[in-house]
Amino acid sequence: MTPTRAELATRLVEAGHQIPSGVPGVYGRSGEFEAILTGVSQAFRGLREQPAEVVQFPPVVPVGSWLKTDYLESFPQLAGALHVFSGTDKDHRAMVATQVAGGEWHEHLHPSELMMVPAGCHPLYPMLAGGLPQPRRFDLMAHCFRHESEEDPLRMVTFRMHEQVYAGEPDGAIEHRELWLGKLVDLLRGLGLEVEVDVANDPFFGRAGRMLASGQREEALKFEVLSLVAGESPTAIASGNAHRSHFGENFGITLTDGSPAHTSCAGIGLERTTIALLARHGMATSEWPAEVRKRLGL
Amino acid sequence: MTPTRAELATRLVEAGHQIPSGVPGVYGRSGEFEAILTGVSQAFRGLREQPAEVVQFPPVVPVGSWLKTDYLESFPQLAGALHVFSGTDKDHRAMVATQVAGGEWHEHLHPSELMMVPAGCHPLYPMLAGGLPQPRRFDLMAHCFRHESEEDPLRMVTFRMHEQVYAGEPDGAIEHRELWLGKLVDLLRGLGLEVEVDVANDPFFGRAGRMLASGQREEALKFEVLSLVAGESPTAIASGNAHRSHFGENFGITLTDGSPAHTSCAGIGLERTTIALLARHGMATSEWPAEVRKRLGL
Repeated sequence: MTPTRAELATRLVEAGHQIPSGVPGVYGRSGEFEAILTGVSQAFRGLREQPAEVVQFPPVVPVGSWLKTDYLESFPQLAGALHVFSGTDKDHRAMVATQVAGGEWHEHLHPSELMMVPAGCHPLYPMLAGGLPQPRRFDLMAHCFRHESEEDPLRMVTFRMHEQVYAGEPDGAIEHRELWLGKLVDLLRGLGLEVEVDVANDPFFGRAGRMLASGQREEALKFEVLSLVAGESPTAIASGNAHRSHFGENFGITLTDGSPAHTSCAGIGLERTTIALLARHGMATSEWPAEVRKRLGL
Repeated sequence: MTPTRAELATRLVEAGHQIPSGVPGVYGRSGEFEAILTGVSQAFRGLREQPAEVVQFPPVVPVGSWLKTDYLESFPQLAGALHVFSGTDKDHRAMVATQVAGGEWHEHLHPSELMMVPAGCHPLYPMLAGGLPQPRRFDLMAHCFRHESEEDPLRMVTFRMHEQVYAGEPDGAIEHRELWLGKLVDLLRGLGLEVEVDVANDPFFGRAGRMLASGQREEALKFEVLSLVAGESPTAIASGNAHRSHFGENFGITLTDGSPAHTSCAGIGLERTTIALLARHGMATSEWPAEVRKRLGL
């Protein structure tokens, strides 16, 4: 019997693994939680068979790069824009007075040149702009932000994603996704989780978005690795995505024949996988199966 | 001879350690950079003599908690507020049309309940609200954001801070800061850096801020661990801060006698320290002194 999502949330808090901030989806984490998460990340990295360039990205990305991912068109409901203050002493006094009076102090801010990173691989594509003489593979990590506050311990506003990304030929992109989906399934099963793979779609916004989502499913571009962690429906804890030439075109990443590069990625949600393991094996890692502890370096 | 800041920036990029995003202060990092950074963080953690509760925080914090740190009054110029979209299909079409036309599409966003975390220990204090029957020590990490875009490789918009925090008695708070300042100096010297400790102040905003900064110096509340990394003036790569009862009062953290708890912290800037080491020992860790490599687990 899996717990309900509310029961799981309570267990995570009582065990000290998840520290509520007051805003759903934003949590502090225990050292033990971080040790599991690091172990998952390292195990994922350890599955690489080919060399990859390791990169770590900050949680923010320039608005110009962000716009090129079509995020404003496709996922506005998840976006986070950074607003800042650059006023004078007088402006500052007015802003503080407005806040103290319970008013709209944010009106004294203005948009900055930065957005929150919504997906691990998005900050990568600007650095690939130009000619791509041969395929490149990347092993990357980023803090992601998606504005979806819900009282669901598996639905986070900020979370870490570890991805293996490919940029190159069309066939290579599909092979990369397939290879890594298989590796992800093996990894997660090896850690004692029951998982299955299913075709999926991204949460495109609005009425036009429903058509984009439907097209993505028909073309079988996105697959999720699902596990029943809590409640009655399974949760995606990893995924593989073929972007075809979407990012190649938008970021000007071209193959030697002048055609846009194809990209694909396979990624694992580090917090979700950690929570899935805590739900599966219990809240104290000291009582986990020895084999799982060993694989995670615990 | 230390390099100029521009020279250092170029070296970091040419060696692949720092990947420019187009916005000064926002960089991707190489796997080797991350390995050094992780080594520094673990070496810092390894200096603990007393048990501490390990916590990791996300890069965002609820606006209510953020306001209680007095950040709006004291450091508005560094703040980052998260604005989001929750409109309809029609609102979305209008926003996209505005963006395509080069207009102020941000006007379709509204303030969320979240701010960027500006300092590693700020997300901790809300979780301590209430009675504090005995002193508590924390070992914590967070991604910090400060809006200060500059063409200076040592001035970052997002960076990671690892801190040791104390909450408890007034004397204990000062002892904690002193103990950890000493440990930080020993750690950094052991890694081959020349450092010195000096009294300092936080970058309080505006004319009123100058008085606060001066008061902070007079009371010797903040100390920085400085190293000449690049250019002609040294850079703070770590610091120790006594907050007296500031957070205890603002967050309602009370000792058994009903008085507000005192807090203090000592923290290390992980990117700055990593860059200081790269500047000191060279861009390839394979050529670093064996002793330094060993201490960092490289």
